[in-house]
Amino acid sequence: MVKIAFIGVGKIGQTIAYSVIFDGLASEAILYDIVPELPEKFEHELRHAIATRGLSTEVIGTNSLDDVTNADIILIMAGKPRKPGMSRRDLFIDNAKIQIDLAKQLPPKNPGALYIMVANPVDMMASVFMRFSKQFTISTGDAVETMRLRSYIAKKLKVPANKVTGYVAGEHGEDAVVLWSTVKVNGKPFEEVAKGLTKEEVENYVKSIPGEIIRVMGGTTWGPATIIKDIVRSVVFNEGRVMSIATPRTYQGEIIHISVPIVVGAEIGPSLEGVLPESDRQRLNKSVEDFYRVYKENLDHLLQTVKQ
Amino acid sequence: MVKIAFIGVGKIGQTIAYSVIFDGLASEAILYDIVPELPEKFEHELRHAIATRGLSTEVIGTNSLDDVTNADIILIMAGKPRKPGMSRRDLFIDNAKIQIDLAKQLPPKNPGALYIMVANPVDMMASVFMRFSKQFTISTGDAVETMRLRSYIAKKLKVPANKVTGYVAGEHGEDAVVLWSTVKVNGKPFEEVAKGLTKEEVENYVKSIPGEIIRVMGGTTWGPATIIKDIVRSVVFNEGRVMSIATPRTYQGEIIHISVPIVVGAEIGPSLEGVLPESDRQRLNKSVEDFYRVYKENLDHLLQTVKQ
Amino acid sequence: MVKIAFIGVGKIGQTIAYSVIFDGLASEAILYDIVPELPEKFEHELRHAIATRGLSTEVIGTNSLDDVTNADIILIMAGKPRKPGMSRRDLFIDNAKIQIDLAKQLPPKNPGALYIMVANPVDMMASVFMRFSKQFTISTGDAVETMRLRSYIAKKLKVPANKVTGYVAGEHGEDAVVLWSTVKVNGKPFEEVAKGLTKEEVENYVKSIPGEIIRVMGGTTWGPATIIKDIVRSVVFNEGRVMSIATPRTYQGEIIHISVPIVVGAEIGPSLEGVLPESDRQRLNKSVEDFYRVYKENLDHLLQTVKQ
Amino acid sequence: MVKIAFIGVGKIGQTIAYSVIFDGLASEAILYDIVPELPEKFEHELRHAIATRGLSTEVIGTNSLDDVTNADIILIMAGKPRKPGMSRRDLFIDNAKIQIDLAKQLPPKNPGALYIMVANPVDMMASVFMRFSKQFTISTGDAVETMRLRSYIAKKLKVPANKVTGYVAGEHGEDAVVLWSTVKVNGKPFEEVAKGLTKEEVENYVKSIPGEIIRVMGGTTWGPATIIKDIVRSVVFNEGRVMSIATPRTYQGEIIHISVPIVVGAEIGPSLEGVLPESDRQRLNKSVEDFYRVYKENLDHLLQTVKQ
Repeated sequence: MVKIAFIGVGKIGQTIAYSVIFDGLASEAILYDIVPELPEKFEHELRHAIATRGLSTEVIGTNSLDDVTNADIILIMAGKPRKPGMSRRDLFIDNAKIQIDLAKQLPPKNPGALYIMVANPVDMMASVFMRFSKQFTISTGDAVETMRLRSYIAKKLKVPANKVTGYVAGEHGEDAVVLWSTVKVNGKPFEEVAKGLTKEEVENYVKSIPGEIIRVMGGTTWGPATIIKDIVRSVVFNEGRVMSIATPRTYQGEIIHISVPIVVGAEIGPSLEGVLPESDRQRLNKSVEDFYRVYKENLDHLLQTVKQ
Repeated sequence: MVKIAFIGVGKIGQTIAYSVIFDGLASEAILYDIVPELPEKFEHELRHAIATRGLSTEVIGTNSLDDVTNADIILIMAGKPRKPGMSRRDLFIDNAKIQIDLAKQLPPKNPGALYIMVANPVDMMASVFMRFSKQFTISTGDAVETMRLRSYIAKKLKVPANKVTGYVAGEHGEDAVVLWSTVKVNGKPFEEVAKGLTKEEVENYVKSIPGEIIRVMGGTTWGPATIIKDIVRSVVFNEGRVMSIATPRTYQGEIIHISVPIVVGAEIGPSLEGVLPESDRQRLNKSVEDFYRVYKENLDHLLQTVKQ
Repeated sequence: MVKIAFIGVGKIGQTIAYSVIFDGLASEAILYDIVPELPEKFEHELRHAIATRGLSTEVIGTNSLDDVTNADIILIMAGKPRKPGMSRRDLFIDNAKIQIDLAKQLPPKNPGALYIMVANPVDMMASVFMRFSKQFTISTGDAVETMRLRSYIAKKLKVPANKVTGYVAGEHGEDAVVLWSTVKVNGKPFEEVAKGLTKEEVENYVKSIPGEIIRVMGGTTWGPATIIKDIVRSVVFNEGRVMSIATPRTYQGEIIHISVPIVVGAEIGPSLEGVLPESDRQRLNKSVEDFYRVYKENLDHLLQTVKQ
Repeated sequence: MVKIAFIGVGKIGQTIAYSVIFDGLASEAILYDIVPELPEKFEHELRHAIATRGLSTEVIGTNSLDDVTNADIILIMAGKPRKPGMSRRDLFIDNAKIQIDLAKQLPPKNPGALYIMVANPVDMMASVFMRFSKQFTISTGDAVETMRLRSYIAKKLKVPANKVTGYVAGEHGEDAVVLWSTVKVNGKPFEEVAKGLTKEEVENYVKSIPGEIIRVMGGTTWGPATIIKDIVRSVVFNEGRVMSIATPRTYQGEIIHISVPIVVGAEIGPSLEGVLPESDRQRLNKSVEDFYRVYKENLDHLLQTVKQ
């Protein structure tokens, strides 16, 4: 009995919606996009897929935000995509305006919904959306980086990815920080099993692989979509998985979103920040400051723009 | 312990591979494409997704057919895509050459593999591949049309798609025939529950919707990929689902592929053709003749081309 | 949105209910039994299990048939269990009386429900229930024997069970007939791959293994429960699997239930009887006659008993 | 590629094995019991079930511990069951002897295995097993109590169980402590939403329901088995769910097992003890002391017994 809305069903939005629906997480799905006919045709595609699986999921594609009502979870992918060579922050102004618009329109018809921001720069967009909507909002944050970290270590050390634990935290993107104290392979610290694999190489992979994928494939889809689906799954089934997503905190009077490993279920929390070693917490604190500084600049600029 | 190869991982190939892997059908997956770097980057994307799911699936992306070895199932998507306005048959010559090449290269290293043709014109490509490879080959045939039929009737009659049964058979594409004798809603014949919905409208939907989706979305992916995944699933788990896929029969001395409802499991068969009413069987016979005529023309033209 | 009722939640009923619910087939489950407190305590157990899975399934345990309302599917396990040494037919009179009672009470409050008989002697109980309820009823029939057949051949020939196809048909129990024409291993006829394994040995296993399990474990549960769950699954998700279950046919004016491979989905049918070779069909015809003769005797005796 | 051994396949062992195998967690399963023929007949039952699902899981039933080799995970159910009216501690001596025997026999042939204790008194048996085997051992601890807590609050407040979070910790059984600071309904503290439901009533349910179920059903199976399966799942798929299981800590020079919410994945940890409020931690400390006192008495008695 879970109704999930997908705001923006371009390439990544379609992939997330598909993963969510066919993992059995939604009894109703609303597919929204501004592109004419796109949500409706995507609805047809999903109906064909639903028929073969024999599900009774209800799916509606729409070009009208008015049809997005009574959703339990709202995923926001609406925003311009990140083009090759473009930084996530370049996108701030344009995509923030979209979020402000959604922040006004979505909450009145969707009481109690959980908002999950996917549009980039994802943490800042979450902060903007929450600032203007007054609704609890999370960002997919470093959940994707976390899995890139694990998969790379696994591949290089020739173990299955499900034997590697550890989290990436801080800001999503180039400045994400690997919480090395948490990285284990078969329960053993990274240092003991690294066999020449350096932390620098791993960190470099986490930061560079999205650009590589975008260059060849035009965008990252399958990885992020599956990981974002698992965030939704952990909420819907109250699994209580620890994931590194960005959740709101107040800093210098502003709500900002920084990723830390946190329990994801019917409640988002508690955070595991308190059990991290001092060195990791210092790096996170620096991320908070850096995020705030850049965010505040962008936000001030945005507020002037919006005022005009 | 099932190894599955995906020959061609463009848009549709990626979507099929994703659906198959995350439905838990493959313990090993080989991703092949001629586009440089594409299989390798897609492999990275899948590794990130596998990490979040905690699977131990092994995935390899490659630009070399030599890496496609010991597969149990080989799905062939390699071929030029069908562009807007293009008929499936227009594609015959170009894609047949690709199949002939694969038919020579794949069998020696993959003894006992089941080949599933996905590239268009799909039934004819299956016939070509089987002719030149001497390997048992099936085509996804009308499995997709079948689900489009059910989903449309469901939507129009406001019932869940899992309450509609019935099959589309014959040739995949414009000349597919709805086996109306098999169409039931909640176990009742279509005629009893149609409430004004005409067979013509339904047939028109089945034939026109792929073009509509291609026009807006650039291609059909989610529907076909999920349905093709279910064919693989029914084989791998030996489910014995009845699906309308195209299987080989000999007509006028040539192997041709025509869709009929057939049991899909460790064995492909028996076919339900024998229990259809005479009228449906006559329409299928006509499909066989029509298919053969067009196929033979194309094939003769191809053989001349190849000889030169 | 599927509501499923379980009539009788002793050992087998509990196992079926558990398998059905945790395969995600029911949005609502009603657990009925005459034993005081049993359904209620079983409800508690299931609630604990549902909590860990994070499902939103609603479960109600009850000692009152009045609470069994608006079910889509009703599974009937109510009946005395088969004790060691007891034939299925011995159970006829006692269990038939239970079915007649249920046949009066269940249909008025459950319009359109599909009835699935599980209580032994299962085919005859289905016939009795359908005779007195006028509701479409199926029996789990030889679905269990079919899987015992496949698993034994697989074990002896050292192949995975999912490589073996083939069906057992006719009457459930000692007189079930293996449809040898349908038995294939990796798609090859049994005879080609048997390597000394005889049909007699296989048939003997199918007939004797339930007794062996009952002797040691007190009853058969895990095998039948999973197989019966798959019948429910194929109906609920409209999978269209071919299974050997007993469906109603009229013979000598009486409704009787005989297993044949048949498509199981939103519609139960078509049957594959028509595509079986003549020899198999003759054996099935003999099963029909045998079943009718014994059933008629029992039924006549029952009718006298009830009248008194 | 995960091999799981089930040591003891009576009622609860069978149910756990079934849940684990059919959730797709094991590629190989070893079923061990001392009861003659029981593992072998259970193997048959599972083979029938595996056939219908089309899995390729390998299952072996055995009466010889020598067949338990190279397992990745070993679940220990071997022990006398808790009878109605019997305390968990009464079982200590008898079951500890069984664990000491297993602690000698299992490790040499199963290098690197994770041991999960299920036999009661479960936490103490884990401590005994780990003491004598020197192998990392966890106990299912309060994972079951945690789900009983959530399901009861859910039922009384008429919300789905997947909307309730919170943990029970300390010792498994009568002295388990509800960590009320962690209990939330839809993310809101228990106190805000309790509507007259008292903490005492909830705690009473958690402590009394197993006895109630045992009285009526003869034992608790479905709840614990599913929850224990989810522990295995979280390890195998590296889900990183936070569960309240008992993990080893050294206290007064002895290894003891106390449940706290902890991340369960390829690594067991980190624990969330450090983020609990002071009041909860004090109660946990008291549990540690109480556990140690009783365990030490029992252990000393055991050591004398064993020596003789």
